[in-house]
Amino acid sequence: MLIVGTLAFDAIESPFGKTDKILGGAATFIGLAASQFDVKSAIVSVVGDDFNQEYLDLLSTKNIDLSGVEIVKGGRTFFWSGKYHNDLNTRDTLTTELNTLADFDPKVPEAYKNADVVMLGNLHPSIQMDVINQMESRPKLIILDTMNYWLDNALNELLEVLKKIDVITLNDEEARQLTGEYSLVKAAEKIETMGPKYVVIKKGEHGALLFNKKNIFFAPALPLEEVFDPTGAGDTFAGGFAGYLTATKNVSFENLKNAVIHGSNLASFCVEKFGTERMVDLKFDEVQSRLEQFKELTQFNIEIQ
Amino acid sequence: MLIVGTLAFDAIESPFGKTDKILGGAATFIGLAASQFDVKSAIVSVVGDDFNQEYLDLLSTKNIDLSGVEIVKGGRTFFWSGKYHNDLNTRDTLTTELNTLADFDPKVPEAYKNADVVMLGNLHPSIQMDVINQMESRPKLIILDTMNYWLDNALNELLEVLKKIDVITLNDEEARQLTGEYSLVKAAEKIETMGPKYVVIKKGEHGALLFNKKNIFFAPALPLEEVFDPTGAGDTFAGGFAGYLTATKNVSFENLKNAVIHGSNLASFCVEKFGTERMVDLKFDEVQSRLEQFKELTQFNIEIQ
Repeated sequence: MLIVGTLAFDAIESPFGKTDKILGGAATFIGLAASQFDVKSAIVSVVGDDFNQEYLDLLSTKNIDLSGVEIVKGGRTFFWSGKYHNDLNTRDTLTTELNTLADFDPKVPEAYKNADVVMLGNLHPSIQMDVINQMESRPKLIILDTMNYWLDNALNELLEVLKKIDVITLNDEEARQLTGEYSLVKAAEKIETMGPKYVVIKKGEHGALLFNKKNIFFAPALPLEEVFDPTGAGDTFAGGFAGYLTATKNVSFENLKNAVIHGSNLASFCVEKFGTERMVDLKFDEVQSRLEQFKELTQFNIEIQ
Repeated sequence: MLIVGTLAFDAIESPFGKTDKILGGAATFIGLAASQFDVKSAIVSVVGDDFNQEYLDLLSTKNIDLSGVEIVKGGRTFFWSGKYHNDLNTRDTLTTELNTLADFDPKVPEAYKNADVVMLGNLHPSIQMDVINQMESRPKLIILDTMNYWLDNALNELLEVLKKIDVITLNDEEARQLTGEYSLVKAAEKIETMGPKYVVIKKGEHGALLFNKKNIFFAPALPLEEVFDPTGAGDTFAGGFAGYLTATKNVSFENLKNAVIHGSNLASFCVEKFGTERMVDLKFDEVQSRLEQFKELTQFNIEIQ
């Protein structure tokens, strides 16, 4: 599994406290989530030489190949800081320093040019396209995550890369913005005509929807007593989704359902602590036990007549 | 099953059109939904003699006993009109004329004073209490629906009646208002200390949550291409929930899960047309086939290790 995305410093303020610069970035959360499935993965990214060696070591211990991570001498790592409002559903971005990300020229390691699954984290669509073009064989599954920033600022490039992918993940407002359709059913239908066969619409605390033609599947977010920090929840969802599909080598709609549940399950842990704190030492047993909670939450027994 | 609630005239504006005064009211939607389960039910309500005989006849053909419906000579029936915004999630109330409802003095028919299930539709909590007090034996299940208006204007009376009931249904904002807790998990826990053993939190297009101690169940709303008119969806949900429990005579948490699904299922029809239009001739086969869609939407197959 090949992961493209940011490795970053995040500084987060929430009603529960405030962090200094801590480990963040889409590729980080995706990689940590995917590592739950014991898959071979590699990150393609860029950092400055201010990036902590311990962060790289941490990712290495999770069996993530970092040979595709460029370390720019004298460069500074991408930095984002944001402040969450009281409801944790809305946030203000305080700072975005692209730094080394501004000139990011992704290089896919030779050993991953035939990866089965490519997970394109939220980045400029031209970078996402560049990575696809470096693949030697068509991956079984290309998953792309994006956000409103690229809809606003690189729509044409995004529409081009959409033609090349299998699964898109984006949130409800973004799906509406991309299609001009308020109904998510109609929005997903329109997005499928743009290229992706599968559309995953993330609704934050309201769960996620998976669409493929007339098939729809819904995974709720686990209702939690306390959401501490939503940063990385969407990336963790995507990483769990992609990691499960990589491990099971099955891209049927039925298995994509399971992948959506696994993604939601892992995201439910991510939000319980600041940054990556909860994800770095998440235990297999904890994950299994929470999957049981997802079953309790959603499975029912009605005989259809 | 005993139903207390309004029989009303509604006039609705939505982006899809506008109606004259049509049949509405909580008891109407509850009764129509419950009638899907072939249960014996009675409505306790009040109307003016301006209320259409054909509406009463319609409810009678659905096997609903109307001996508890007072028809006030020279009185006018409760009238509500509202206008939905483009997203259909928010609405403005244009008119509320209480009319005969202002002096509503509910009378439970003798034959229903030992009903198994009492469904208290959204009304002044004093009226809901009055009905409970008229019961000769404690019903197996008392379900109460309420709304922010009563939280604002009759909170003490509401808190009194909460002590007497088994299930409360209210929406997410109302649950937060009632408890001061943003987390719905914490809100539900607090509401349980106020009396109801089961708490159902309705989230409109985002589904409904059922809580009982540490048990949580979630039913999504069916994603629809087009929502035409949300009026009555909450009452239809409650009517389906109560009707199913009346028919199955089983108030275990497992069966309440099924009841939540049946409620969501029926509500998904209600919103497809104006007012009661879709509900009045809803066929058994349509209901069953949509239950199948709910299964497809939510059921997955992950083995827990």
